[in-house]
Amino acid sequence: MRVYTAKGGGFCFGVKRAIDIAYKVAGKYKGGVYTLGPIIHNPQVIEELKSMGVMPVEDIRSLKGKDVGAVIIRTHGVTRQAMKKLTDSGYTIIDATCPYVKKAQYYAKLLKDEGYQVVILGSREHPEVKGLMSYAGRGAVVVRDATELPPLKKRVGVVVQTTRHVEALKDVLCAIAGQIKELKVYNTLCSSTTERLKETEELARKVDVMVIVGGKNSANTTQLAKLCRSLSVPTHHIETALDLRESWFSGAKRAAISAGASTPERLIKEVERKIKGYRRKVS
Amino acid sequence: MRVYTAKGGGFCFGVKRAIDIAYKVAGKYKGGVYTLGPIIHNPQVIEELKSMGVMPVEDIRSLKGKDVGAVIIRTHGVTRQAMKKLTDSGYTIIDATCPYVKKAQYYAKLLKDEGYQVVILGSREHPEVKGLMSYAGRGAVVVRDATELPPLKKRVGVVVQTTRHVEALKDVLCAIAGQIKELKVYNTLCSSTTERLKETEELARKVDVMVIVGGKNSANTTQLAKLCRSLSVPTHHIETALDLRESWFSGAKRAAISAGASTPERLIKEVERKIKGYRRKVS
Repeated sequence: MRVYTAKGGGFCFGVKRAIDIAYKVAGKYKGGVYTLGPIIHNPQVIEELKSMGVMPVEDIRSLKGKDVGAVIIRTHGVTRQAMKKLTDSGYTIIDATCPYVKKAQYYAKLLKDEGYQVVILGSREHPEVKGLMSYAGRGAVVVRDATELPPLKKRVGVVVQTTRHVEALKDVLCAIAGQIKELKVYNTLCSSTTERLKETEELARKVDVMVIVGGKNSANTTQLAKLCRSLSVPTHHIETALDLRESWFSGAKRAAISAGASTPERLIKEVERKIKGYRRKVS
Repeated sequence: MRVYTAKGGGFCFGVKRAIDIAYKVAGKYKGGVYTLGPIIHNPQVIEELKSMGVMPVEDIRSLKGKDVGAVIIRTHGVTRQAMKKLTDSGYTIIDATCPYVKKAQYYAKLLKDEGYQVVILGSREHPEVKGLMSYAGRGAVVVRDATELPPLKKRVGVVVQTTRHVEALKDVLCAIAGQIKELKVYNTLCSSTTERLKETEELARKVDVMVIVGGKNSANTTQLAKLCRSLSVPTHHIETALDLRESWFSGAKRAAISAGASTPERLIKEVERKIKGYRRKVS
């Protein structure tokens, strides 16, 4: 069995930057260091950071009564209102929002200020999208895909959750074209997402089984698994090598591994090593 | 045989306005009244206007040596350079450019001024598009459909020849989405074109034969015929009732007539009357 590993899997620029920041500040403050929500969507990394004293809390209210040294804003960013509350409360803020997410927030606000009805392509439940919504104004709508588009106003502005698939953007623009007079689009998809999806699709097309490594709560990792399944390749989304089952590979001639933007290199390597071990036993 | 006639066929707002202007000024100037190119793309109307003294000339140079009373700019508009030449030459200018085309010219210039690479969806040979190009700046490209799109810059602005089909706009936006960072679209399709195409498509889907009335040199009329043919309905593009052949309707249970934006009501009525005559003979 041949085993391929996607080059574009693992920490993207924004995640790497946020993790670096967290490691750097861990233990440097008199009080505790807290992140609002998990800093990235990977449980293994969160556990490691916890052991270094960087603790996730659910929201700002959870900070009450705690000895707060600093508050880290995670890669996905926060809402405008949360940012104001944090500032007003006098906490030391360390902003680890991905710069591409910051840009998307900026464009959402710009479109609103220019009088466009803002359409956000993404998942309403995702923290990045919650942040974008807070900048996009009252008339904004969030759609997961073109089928969810409501009737729109005549001047529409579009921003995209940075980790979505470009195909969804194409579908949405196509669907919007018929009903508007003016359209402004900021393609805020980050290039590492686009490339990772592309590379993963290419791998999925040539192998018998796909393994996707990353947090079950990671939207971009889940999206990779969904893409592979849509190509009818047997696909397994796992968090660590412990989740692997040898039986998945029985009879397979080619297998491939891809991973989300929040998956540490170490976890990918462990998965790769274990699968290559199966290969030796098989051959 | 039942005969349906499209309600949306015949003179659109811009054409009606231009013809009204031409009739109004005919014979009112000491010198001759000239139009730069045919005022609309309908040979029968042009002949009628000629008989009233409104003469089409090919370009500004053709006016040299003539006793020019006034120059009418036709519905499709002219290039920025031509407009300047006309103004500089001191001719009395009567601007019959369709207000929707004027708007498209304005947006083409606006996009250029805002630093976008302008993409014009339309036919390079069409006078309206030649006008738009002159406002869209050096880097502008003209495409007939998505397949003609070249590699684009990162900031792209789109305007559309007012008489194109909305489906072509959808395809183009879909194709552009993947390669840009920022996109601004002015949907300059005129609503009468969109409605006429929609109504004609609905008729074509329920009849056995389609008759499209209008100038052979009229892009929007030709587009109607093309649309019907794409739906596999036997379709005949004629200019006047004289072009009709009774044999086209043998065995037909339902026939429909549609017409371009530059086709006079009178010509449509004549065609309708003649086809209804066949019906009587048949039944």
